[in-house]
Formats: sequence, C-alpha cells, structure tokens
Amino acid sequence: MPIYKAPVEDTSFILNEVIRIADYAHLAGFDEATPDLVSAILEEGSKFVEEVLQPLNQVGDDIGCVRNADGSVTAPPGFKEAYKEFCAAGWQGLAQSAEFGGQGLPHVIATAFEEYLISANMAFAMYPGLTHGAIAAIQAVGSQEQQQRYVPKMIEGVWSGTMNLTEPQCGTDLGLLRTKAEPQADGSYRVSGTKIFISAGDHDMSENIIHLVLAKMPDSPDSVRGISLFIVPKFLINDDGSLGARNQVSCGSIEKKMGIHGNATCVLNYDGATGYLIGEKEKGMRAMFIMMNAARLGVGLQGLAISEVASQNAAGYARDRLQGRALSGPKNADDKADPIIVHPDVRRMLMNARAFNEGARALALWGALQVDLTHCGDTPEVRDEAEDLIGLLTPVIKAFFTDKGFENATNAQQCLGGHGYIREWGMEQFVRDARIAMIYEGTNGIQALDLVGRKLPAKGGRALRTYLSIVGRFISEHKDDETMGPLVAKLSEALSDLQAATSWLMSNAMAKPDNAGAASVPYLHLMALVMFGHMWGQIARAALDGIKRGEGDAKFYENKLITARYFYSHMLSESSVHRARVEAGSETMMALEAEAF
Amino acid sequence: MPIYKAPVEDTSFILNEVIRIADYAHLAGFDEATPDLVSAILEEGSKFVEEVLQPLNQVGDDIGCVRNADGSVTAPPGFKEAYKEFCAAGWQGLAQSAEFGGQGLPHVIATAFEEYLISANMAFAMYPGLTHGAIAAIQAVGSQEQQQRYVPKMIEGVWSGTMNLTEPQCGTDLGLLRTKAEPQADGSYRVSGTKIFISAGDHDMSENIIHLVLAKMPDSPDSVRGISLFIVPKFLINDDGSLGARNQVSCGSIEKKMGIHGNATCVLNYDGATGYLIGEKEKGMRAMFIMMNAARLGVGLQGLAISEVASQNAAGYARDRLQGRALSGPKNADDKADPIIVHPDVRRMLMNARAFNEGARALALWGALQVDLTHCGDTPEVRDEAEDLIGLLTPVIKAFFTDKGFENATNAQQCLGGHGYIREWGMEQFVRDARIAMIYEGTNGIQALDLVGRKLPAKGGRALRTYLSIVGRFISEHKDDETMGPLVAKLSEALSDLQAATSWLMSNAMAKPDNAGAASVPYLHLMALVMFGHMWGQIARAALDGIKRGEGDAKFYENKLITARYFYSHMLSESSVHRARVEAGSETMMALEAEAF
Repeated sequence: MPIYKAPVEDTSFILNEVIRIADYAHLAGFDEATPDLVSAILEEGSKFVEEVLQPLNQVGDDIGCVRNADGSVTAPPGFKEAYKEFCAAGWQGLAQSAEFGGQGLPHVIATAFEEYLISANMAFAMYPGLTHGAIAAIQAVGSQEQQQRYVPKMIEGVWSGTMNLTEPQCGTDLGLLRTKAEPQADGSYRVSGTKIFISAGDHDMSENIIHLVLAKMPDSPDSVRGISLFIVPKFLINDDGSLGARNQVSCGSIEKKMGIHGNATCVLNYDGATGYLIGEKEKGMRAMFIMMNAARLGVGLQGLAISEVASQNAAGYARDRLQGRALSGPKNADDKADPIIVHPDVRRMLMNARAFNEGARALALWGALQVDLTHCGDTPEVRDEAEDLIGLLTPVIKAFFTDKGFENATNAQQCLGGHGYIREWGMEQFVRDARIAMIYEGTNGIQALDLVGRKLPAKGGRALRTYLSIVGRFISEHKDDETMGPLVAKLSEALSDLQAATSWLMSNAMAKPDNAGAASVPYLHLMALVMFGHMWGQIARAALDGIKRGEGDAKFYENKLITARYFYSHMLSESSVHRARVEAGSETMMALEAEAF
Repeated sequence: MPIYKAPVEDTSFILNEVIRIADYAHLAGFDEATPDLVSAILEEGSKFVEEVLQPLNQVGDDIGCVRNADGSVTAPPGFKEAYKEFCAAGWQGLAQSAEFGGQGLPHVIATAFEEYLISANMAFAMYPGLTHGAIAAIQAVGSQEQQQRYVPKMIEGVWSGTMNLTEPQCGTDLGLLRTKAEPQADGSYRVSGTKIFISAGDHDMSENIIHLVLAKMPDSPDSVRGISLFIVPKFLINDDGSLGARNQVSCGSIEKKMGIHGNATCVLNYDGATGYLIGEKEKGMRAMFIMMNAARLGVGLQGLAISEVASQNAAGYARDRLQGRALSGPKNADDKADPIIVHPDVRRMLMNARAFNEGARALALWGALQVDLTHCGDTPEVRDEAEDLIGLLTPVIKAFFTDKGFENATNAQQCLGGHGYIREWGMEQFVRDARIAMIYEGTNGIQALDLVGRKLPAKGGRALRTYLSIVGRFISEHKDDETMGPLVAKLSEALSDLQAATSWLMSNAMAKPDNAGAASVPYLHLMALVMFGHMWGQIARAALDGIKRGEGDAKFYENKLITARYFYSHMLSESSVHRARVEAGSETMMALEAEAF
C-alpha cells in the first residue's frame, strides 16, 4: 500500500527562509501566523491527512461513489466520517474570514496544508476545495443577506458547494450554454437544464449542497454576455436557517471516468429548481472567474501534490528493490544485488521530480502570498503588484504544475517497473488521478491562451514587465557571488530566451493571431522554467544563508544546493527549445486542411 | 465509441515509394510479395481488424479476463470467436516459414499488418504476438523434433505461446531467478516456481499453451550464467500429437492492472510441471534474447499503433466539436461556433502525432526490412549490415515509440477535454493501454542502457558508424536540392548534436560509467530524432518524386511535404536539449545520498 509523509521540513523552510512570511507580520492575518502556530498547524495537519485521509485513498478508487436506486449518492466508505473529523478540527475554515467563523489565517498557510490534503487523498480534497470556490464567489458578489445565509455553514463544512458550468454541448465556450432561469413572482428563479462533469455534485458527506449555476434568463442575449449566476441549494432553506424541501435538482448519473473515483462527478438535472440570482444579472461570468481563478491555483497544487506523493513512493521502492549492480561497482556487496536507486536513470527520474516538487512548492507558496497581498497589502502599489503577479502566475501554475505532475507520476510509476502497472501498488492510481488536472478548470491549452492572449497584453504588458524586473534584479544582485554566479548565469540565459520569445510574439502575433495560438503552450512552459529558475535561485540563496549561519541541518541545506545545480544543469536548458518552437510559427501547423486529418 | 481506419494509403506509400520493397524482389519471400498481393493483404487485413477486432476493444477493457472457480481463465466475450477467425484466415502465419505451414511472406509485410492489428485491439494482438515470440525461440534453438512438434500448431494458431521470465523478486536482473528444473530419468524436467506478469498466460482461446520458461537446474550456477530455457506445455502432448493430461502449471491469479484488461496477465504456478530443455543447458538467456528482440520491436509497434488510433479519434472529434471561434476569424459562420480543429493548439497536438505516426511507420517498416535482410540478404555484407542496423534500431524503436505513443495518446485524450477523461469515449483506455509498453520487455530505461552500453560499443562501434554514414550520405546527396536543402540542413544540425553527444560519451563514460547511465535516455531520444529526421527526409524525397511524376494524389504528396517541414521546424530542434542533458553529466544526478529521497 502506498505511503505518504507530509514534507513539513521543506514547507517550513520555504515559508520561513525563502518567502519569509515573518516579513509580513504587520499585515492582517499574518499577525496571527506566528512561527509556533504555523508549525503546529503543519504538524497537526500532516498527522490528520497521513492517518485519516491517506488510508482512504485506495478505497475511494476501488469502490468509488455510488448512485443508489433512489437517486441519492453515497461517497466511498469512510469518506463521510473523515469529512466530519475534517470539519470538526476546523480545517475547512483555516483561511476563511473570522467574521463568518473561519480562522482568518493567511491563504499561504492554507495552501501549505492543502498540498498535504491533496497528496493524501486528491478525490477527498476536492469536496472541501469546491466549497472554497463557492464561498469565494458568494463572498465576492453575494448580498450581505446571502453571505450570512450560506457562508457560515459552508465554512463550518456542514454545507458544501459546487460549480456548474459545463453542459453537453458547451465546455470552454460558455456562450453556448442553454440552462434557463425564469424569474418568478417571489423574486426567485426556476432553473432548468442539464449540467455535466459536476465535481462533488452529489454525496452524503454534507447536510446540504449549495450549487452555483450559470444560466441565462429568457430576456438575456444568447451569448456569453447573457449569462447570470444562481444559487441553487440541494435542500431549500427555511427562514430560520433550517433545511426545507428537496429542490428539483437531481443526480442523473455518476460519470465512469479514468480516475478520481472517490469524487462524484455528476450529471445534474435541473428540472425547474428554485434558484436565487447572485451578483448582477448578466454578470455571471465575472463571478464565475472569481471561483475559477482560485480553483485554477488549487488544480495547480494537485499537480504538485500528486508528483510529491508519487515520487515518495517511487523513492521508497527504489531504496528497497534489489536488482542489478551499480555501474560504478557493487554498493550492497553482501546481497545478490544493489537497490535500484544506485542506477543513474532511476535517479534521473527521482531528481526531476524532486527539483520540480521543491521548486513548485516554493512557487505555489509565493503565489499564495501574492493572493494574500491582493487583500491585505498595506499600500495600493503592493496590492496592484500582487494582483499583476498572481494574474501571470495562475495559468502557469495551473498548466505547468499539472503537466509536470502527470509526467512525474508517470515516471514514478516507471521506477516500479511492472509493479507500477499493477493496481495494488497504487502508482497507477496516481497517474490516473493526476491526468484530470490537465483538463479541468480550463484545459492546459486554454491556460496558455489565457497567458498569451489576456495576461501578457493586459494593462500594456505591465504584469510581465514587473515580473521580468524582479527576476532581472535577482540576477544582478547575485551574479558576482562565487556560488550563486554560475547559477544565475543559467537563469539569465533562460530569461533571454523568454525575452526573445516575447519580442517574437509582439512582432508576429498581432498581424497573425494563429502565431499566438501556436506559440502559447511552448511560451507558457518557457515562462514556467524562468519562474522555477527564479525560485531555485532564492532557494539556493536561502540554503547558503543557512549554511553560513551554521544552525540547523547542514545536510538539508547542502541537498538544496545540489538539487538547485541539478535543476540548472539538467532542466533549465529546455528553455531554448521552447523558444525555438515559439519562433517556428504557425504556418506548417495550420497548413493542412481539416479533412486531411 | 472510438473508430479506427487502417492507414493503408500511407503504408502502401512507404512500402512502395519510400523503402521500395520492389528493389528486393529478387530475394526469397519478397519474390512472392507482388504489389497486388501486398495490396490485397493490407485491404483484407484492415477489413478484418476494423470489423471484427476493433469492436471488441472496449468490451475487452470493461469485462477483461476472468479466472473461474476451477482455476481456468476465460478471455473477454468475443475474443475466442475472433481468434478462430483470425487463425482461419491465416493471419497468424503471414510471415512464418512455409515449411511449417506459414505463408512465407517478408517480415516487413507482417509488420505492416501487425500495426493495424494492435491499433484495433492491443490486448487481443498480444495473444498472437506472444505466440510469434515463442515460435521464433523454438525455431532458433529447438531441435528438429521440437520444431516439428510445436511450430506447425502454433503457426496454425490452435496452440499459443508465452514467455516466462519475471518472478516476484526478479525482473530486469534475471540472475536472481529461483524457478528450478530438476532432471528426470526420462530426459524431461520437473519445473517448480512462481512466474508473474505472464501475458496471455492462460485463456480459452487456443487448445494448448506452450510456455517457454527460464529456470535453473540444481547443478547450475545461481546467476545469470546458470539459466536454461524449458518448454512447458499447458497440456502434455502424446506421441501422436494429440493432447494428453493437464500439466502441473496453473494460473494463481490474474493481475488487476491499469490497462490491457483484455489480455490475461497471470501469476503462473509451476508445481513440478513437466518441462523439456530447449537449446543448450545454461544458454537460456541467448534463446530468450531471440524472443525478446522480436518482442521489443513488437512493443515499439504498440507505441505507434496506439498513437495512430488515438489521434484518429482526436482528429474526428476536433473536426466535429463546435466550440469557440478561430483566432483568425470565424470559419463556420453559419453556426454558433467553429470546430475546434481551427485552434492552433489542437493542431499542434494533432501535428505532433501525425509527424510521429508517419515517421514511425516508415522507421518501423525500414527496421522490419532489416530483419528480413538479416535472413535473406544476398551477400554476407548485406546480412551483417542489416544485423548491425536492427541492433541499433531495436532499443530506439522500443523506447522512443512507446514514450511518444503514450504522449500522443495523452494529447489525443486532451483534444477531447473532459470527454477524454470519461470511459465511454475510449480515449482514456488508449492512455492506459499505451502505458504498459514503456515498461514491459525491458523498461525504456533498460533500452537506453542497451543502446549506450551494448549496441554502441559492440564490434568497435561498427553499427553506429554504418548508420551515421548512411545519414551523412543522404545529407550530401540532397543538400544542394532547392526543396530538400533546407530540410537536410536541419537534419545535419541534429546529426552534429548526435555526433557531439557520442564523442562526449566516448570521452567521459569509460572513466565514470555513471555518465553513461545518466546520459542514456537523452542519448536514445537524440538518436531517435536523427532517425526520424532521416526517414522524414526520405519521405519528402519520395513525395517530391511523386509530384514530379504527376501521377496519383497530388494532395497526398503535398501534405507529406508540409508534415515534413513541421517535423523539421517544430520537433527536430529538441535534439540540442538532449545533447545538453548528455553533456550535463551524472554528478548532480548522483550526488544525494539514497536516504535523502
């Protein structure tokens, strides 16, 4: 059975020594997040996910969710009880506003915990994850009354939430949606239509489910500009807050899918269900994007979390499995074979995962810090810069983390050879679970278009300029340092590739937009490499500082430097190929007629 | 439900215009393979796999193989009947020797058909595939009497075959195997032990199963040098050739695995089963490598075949699914959205698959031609060169084709968005099925070690020298051609990367073997790119010749040129990164202590 050990030491290092959350102690939320409290949260959080949730991960996959004869849905064995514990311990409300019963801690701390939660049990983690998205939308655009009515119960966890966008004929292109909301005399709406792929769509873990549903009113334009957002509770809510009648929304079926079997992906049928407009009429897309952006960062974390747990298991197997001899001579001469971790190609896969995991963790937490700063930053400049940066980071974290998460899960499976292909070892579940993250909340291709078509040109390119100057500053500050110099020299090369690719886009994409589309995925990967290079630079510097201080675990810091060097020598060099692909343009890509395929 | 249409036009183009099998018409086997016969085989073969086998592919996945209460194993519904048809039509014996009832056609023709077979139903194709491997071993090392006894029935298909290498404690490192074969007074052996991961290990499709089993005799060294090969039939065979008693080999269980559910992957328990030594005592590894090398080429084909069928389905979906508008303006103005094939990033995934599929098909068939030439080449020089080339090609075809096959299946799934993750569309089955090919018959990491550690240094590096001079000659012949010049210029760059990486290996791997291990996978991918560049050059030249002749389908030839240009501009440039990774060496890769992971 697979194992999982939350990487608390690494998280703490990143929080305290790389992004240095103590520097923000004067800000709301951060004032509470003392080192002792953060340390207690990470320790308690790991214990909970390791002991309660991880043992349910294979059960969730094997048994999955069941739609019963009466149309109700039962979560996998143990999920309901674990969710009750999860809520009782207050994990759902970690970074939620204290006003509504949350603990009011910074988002960056909740993000650290969320990684562990997903590693232990991705399908489980989606239930509270979807609720977080729904809470964010209600808080952003709901009336005071709506917030009071729904948010406290959702923070408590007794009610959960969902996002309802997709319909059979309408995925990425929401303008095509057909679900209708007809106004009623009492100010409510009758919502009718079919929504598909609704994660956590129905289950028995919470007492009520608050569906957030995109629909069109009869007099709205039949396009993306005619979409409004509605709250449709599974059970209607009486004025005193108690639960009333079952609403006319039902689970038509649970999708049979490749992975995340523990999460109920439902077809939801709305048959004149009672709904309530939330936010302004025809401004549904704006509200949905609030949920979506938070959700995209969460999905990015899934990439990291699965990569982490899969590579932990691969490393454990590689240390134990005796097979063959080291090329450099026996390392375990008393036995008939050496552990396979002596083989460079096994190392290659483990080091690729390690350099990704640690870099991604730093980037995810730095990104989460930006989310905090958009709210609690102490000047408008700080808040604006954070807004710019998280805008740029979101598509990169979503797409790059999940592409690499899947790749690393696949490599981790490879380390086990044939055993990796067999269900009982759990490795193939990681691969199947990781796969969805490249697809949902906007496919990775859509993320790349969002980056190139929306985030780069926004505000005259301000976000990218800001980011490039941060990286440029880091390079100049460290280029003359004996240890850091050779590392940032490589970062500087990758940065040049990014700048050249950006110039190419500016010169070639306006006149011919297909060039932007063709370049988008390699461009996103190129930017991701620079971002990782920047994080690894900061990690290396923090490690050097740690060694200089002479406190703590010297080996830990030295391993960071080795991994940084590995990243710069083996992984960052890919930047030149992404640049070449950007500059290769769209001509041959688009030249064939559609019928030729 | 997924579709499949065998790419007969492309196969015919490669056979007739790229590798030009007519040039070999003077050789045994090829003399029979007239253009009309080959065309009839490809047409009949496609019809059979499209109509009979492809419709069983999802059934095989959903229902899988069943181990019954009495220990017998039942193949998925329809498999037994389809296999009977397959055998009756003579497909099993296409390239088998006429002496034993086969049709005696060249291996290259059988390979063309085998691709179709796998695309239609990979799990099914493994049953005859394993039998082919067993036939090859029996023909190579079996006595005349053994050949007469087993081979005709296996060519007919009424008996099938398996390969038994792996044991719980022993995968890649066969020296660790424990299965024992004790000599009996009558010249037979009592075979005892447990073999795992035995594909097509037990089923009801054939009347008997001929297991080829690696085991050690009591007086043999307990290492790889002590391994002998044994024939262990499921049912003993009477002197008149009829079936006798059930042998003491039984299926302990069927593995639950990620994919290829339609193939019974068995734990086989040998409890003093009657076996017969085949080949010389303690020369079992040599015989096994005969099976293995053929099997590796077959596994490589699985990568191509799944990539082909998956991308056909992705292209079909992309032509039909309406979502969003082309960046360059509406292409389907009468409807509310354009088909997603207008989006460059969808094209990118389809073009990557197309350039791989067509290049891989050419390389696989050229490789298969070399296999033929090792047997029927008319001079020792021709046979030796073919032997060298297929030695070099085998690990590349096995590893690169299956890495890319999985990648392309994943991308094809991506083209369907959320629908790709749902079982009914069949795309996720392609991904799950494709995954095993990177693992079995020697993981792709082992293939890379075989290339770098065995195939490169063999005979003083003769094989690589031969191959490099073939590519070099192709470049000089075409560098001044107006159309071919710019293409071979890019091939020339990739070739320089390969030469530089080879020199680096020669200078750095002797003193420090870990450098060879660390470099092996990027080196293999670099060599594969050069091989593809070479094939695409030949395809482009054949297309130009076709256009010049002015016969046939001009569009077909023009599309080949476009795809060639796409390959050279978007895919071949990766060669520089592989070279950089080779040259980055093993130091940081190996520096961490095993406990740090």
